[in-house]
Amino acid sequence: MEFNKITPAVLSSIKAIVGDDLVITGHADLEKYSHDETEDLHYYPEVVARPKSPEEISALLKLCNQNLVPVTVRGAGTGLSGGALPVKGGLLIAMERFDHIIDIDLENLQATVEPGVITETFMNAVAEKGLLYPVDPASKGSCFIGGNVSHGSGGPRVVKYGTIREYVLNLQVVLPDGDIIWTGANTLKYASGYNLTQLMIGSEGSLGVITKIVVKLIPRPTQDALMLASFTTNEEAAAAVSAIFRAGVVPSALEFMERRGVEWVMEHDAISFDLKDDIHAFLLIEVDGTNQDVIFSDCEKINDVLEQFGCRNVLFADSAAQKEELWRMRRTMAVSVKSNTVYKEEDTVVPRAALPHLISGIKEIGKRYGFESVCYGHAGDGNVHTNIIKAGMSDEDWNNKLKDGIREIFELTVSLGGTISGEHGIGLVQKEFMPVKFSQVHFELWRGIKKVFDPNGILNPGKIF
Amino acid sequence: MEFNKITPAVLSSIKAIVGDDLVITGHADLEKYSHDETEDLHYYPEVVARPKSPEEISALLKLCNQNLVPVTVRGAGTGLSGGALPVKGGLLIAMERFDHIIDIDLENLQATVEPGVITETFMNAVAEKGLLYPVDPASKGSCFIGGNVSHGSGGPRVVKYGTIREYVLNLQVVLPDGDIIWTGANTLKYASGYNLTQLMIGSEGSLGVITKIVVKLIPRPTQDALMLASFTTNEEAAAAVSAIFRAGVVPSALEFMERRGVEWVMEHDAISFDLKDDIHAFLLIEVDGTNQDVIFSDCEKINDVLEQFGCRNVLFADSAAQKEELWRMRRTMAVSVKSNTVYKEEDTVVPRAALPHLISGIKEIGKRYGFESVCYGHAGDGNVHTNIIKAGMSDEDWNNKLKDGIREIFELTVSLGGTISGEHGIGLVQKEFMPVKFSQVHFELWRGIKKVFDPNGILNPGKIF
Repeated sequence: MEFNKITPAVLSSIKAIVGDDLVITGHADLEKYSHDETEDLHYYPEVVARPKSPEEISALLKLCNQNLVPVTVRGAGTGLSGGALPVKGGLLIAMERFDHIIDIDLENLQATVEPGVITETFMNAVAEKGLLYPVDPASKGSCFIGGNVSHGSGGPRVVKYGTIREYVLNLQVVLPDGDIIWTGANTLKYASGYNLTQLMIGSEGSLGVITKIVVKLIPRPTQDALMLASFTTNEEAAAAVSAIFRAGVVPSALEFMERRGVEWVMEHDAISFDLKDDIHAFLLIEVDGTNQDVIFSDCEKINDVLEQFGCRNVLFADSAAQKEELWRMRRTMAVSVKSNTVYKEEDTVVPRAALPHLISGIKEIGKRYGFESVCYGHAGDGNVHTNIIKAGMSDEDWNNKLKDGIREIFELTVSLGGTISGEHGIGLVQKEFMPVKFSQVHFELWRGIKKVFDPNGILNPGKIF
Repeated sequence: MEFNKITPAVLSSIKAIVGDDLVITGHADLEKYSHDETEDLHYYPEVVARPKSPEEISALLKLCNQNLVPVTVRGAGTGLSGGALPVKGGLLIAMERFDHIIDIDLENLQATVEPGVITETFMNAVAEKGLLYPVDPASKGSCFIGGNVSHGSGGPRVVKYGTIREYVLNLQVVLPDGDIIWTGANTLKYASGYNLTQLMIGSEGSLGVITKIVVKLIPRPTQDALMLASFTTNEEAAAAVSAIFRAGVVPSALEFMERRGVEWVMEHDAISFDLKDDIHAFLLIEVDGTNQDVIFSDCEKINDVLEQFGCRNVLFADSAAQKEELWRMRRTMAVSVKSNTVYKEEDTVVPRAALPHLISGIKEIGKRYGFESVCYGHAGDGNVHTNIIKAGMSDEDWNNKLKDGIREIFELTVSLGGTISGEHGIGLVQKEFMPVKFSQVHFELWRGIKKVFDPNGILNPGKIF
């Protein structure tokens, strides 16, 4: 696809659509839009527009579509796959002014929200009404709900409450030719033609621009318990995970953390924690509900399982402050790793019983290629974030040989029944590994779908495939 | 699209692929494949093939694609939208020999199953292992799980456990050109390109033929309680529905039934029930879990809500036999209505607080057009099956004027935020009402997607749009 640069005439039209003061063109001001949270990558857009309404986005897309100008839509820029990077330049549409919670409908337990609302802001707003929106990525304090939808983002509580796909009921979307549609209906069930809502979820801004989101809400659990279980090996911790579900318990979170990650969090975030020498892995396990007896009984069942898998110690959080501290340890792990070393993060996901194989396999591959790794994440979903650490690897090997090691990690993941990404999306940095899992037939279907929505390929070019 | 008839040469090839004895051509033997459970519609296929493997289906599709022969895939023929009717003749692929539960994976709580397995057979097989597959359409004793996936089918327990979209992890699909692919991965989370699994769900056999299904299983609840609440008006019963969720309880089923439906079930199925003169509507409410105290406490909360909405009486089922009897009343309602009268069934769904408006609106429309109606179904999801009863309507009005009345019902449904079908699919009989909800833009997107998968349009032609 041949794209055009933004001409002065196109720039004038952009300014006419959103207003002069909401268009950014200076190099220094463009910097913040040139990167997301993915490694150290920078791609500058030519122009940033900060629209406020679907109608403005419709006019912008029509303009860019006619002029073959690439368009990248950006949420909060917290993505980990480079999805928001404007790799072909062009126009970047910043969604930060779509920051309004339009309606929390207490009759129907639904909410309508703009995509630029911070996920945690929204979660807190519904929590105040006694309700739960459970999709809580680690970056919930800064990420936008629109980015979550676009990337099929998850978080710890997916394991009990289901993925974002179960909560998004309907989307308002602007298509590249300027049409504004609702993809579905505000209903809990929907069997009315090909499901465009589900197709938009996880399409990474490449099919249309999401401008409103209708989500399902559920009653809020009133109680929870949190425990941290310590193990001397990764494998024992990972093996306990699937056994917990087999014991008939569905925790509201079941997170895995490696020792090295905990060490870095302790340093970086000054979290105090009595880390014993022989402990190499942790499971952070939350159980929630409405009845303390049931929660205690579930915790006992979990405890029985943990003992069978060589767990050394279980710490029960005995206050809200301790719970928050343990959760902070888990949530800041990505940032701590990032601040300590050059790294690459992969979002491996396998059927959960395959976790021990995946983790030991990653370590074995690391030995052969000379990289270290820190694994942590949503073990209850079989979804482990693998942070590859440069450590003693030479720049030469890091830049050239490492790709083969990453490919081996994905080959292992796929051979275990898994896939390239569980919740971060493919974006820019996972794109080259897609053939490990997918055939030419998949690529042709995806390209065909893309062409139906975006015949000129202006939306987020250079991503996914 | 111009299709060809099945020539003797094509018939020979079909026989060579699946075996002579598994091909049906005689008119009498074709009769059972000429209808499903949708009204009294009959469309004969030219030929029925009963393949056993994805490879046989691949060869059949390749053959039909090359020869422009239409192909309709049929599950158990329990559909209510005419989705399995071969309206253009051609080849009907009967999936009844795909009846094998390939694997119940206790380590991962997943199962791999062929599409021709009866839903209840599968549910029972996983129940024996202490697990739950919760998607239970009323026809679960006879429908196939493949048909459920193809139509996005639901059932009473969706209200607590989520739709079939939350349980289908991966699909093996044969495309019209004979390619056999897996749409995704066997993982609980998936953010790896456009989600082809979700696109196949609810596509009604028009994009590819599903040959294997991987589903998620969950621990089985060990206890439940069932209550039948009686109301003097439909509106009070319907209004209580959304109030139950607002009280913080998520029942495992919340079904609405109108008096006339109960009367017909009593007649047709000889169910004995003390039906008081002043009672006009019922809610059948189930609560499940693992702890009797929690279930009792939830039941008390529900009871409080019911009292506020003028509930006259609550019957608690006090034995397994009584629970089964109450469930049988609900489940056989469709069959009882059908055996009593000429009817049409619509699958209206709205946000749940709009139910009272929907039901009173349907009655008002019925008065103007001269038809009666019986409403029942999954009120907890806002999904009510509306059975339109011919009653005193003339044949002339039934055949001609009724369509306008149905259109008005859908206009009302859409104006309340709902859609044409919640779980039955669009198929043949809902097709003409799709423009009530959807614009030309939606149709163009759907047609485009269809063309990507099935450029010659051979799969289930004449359906959805």
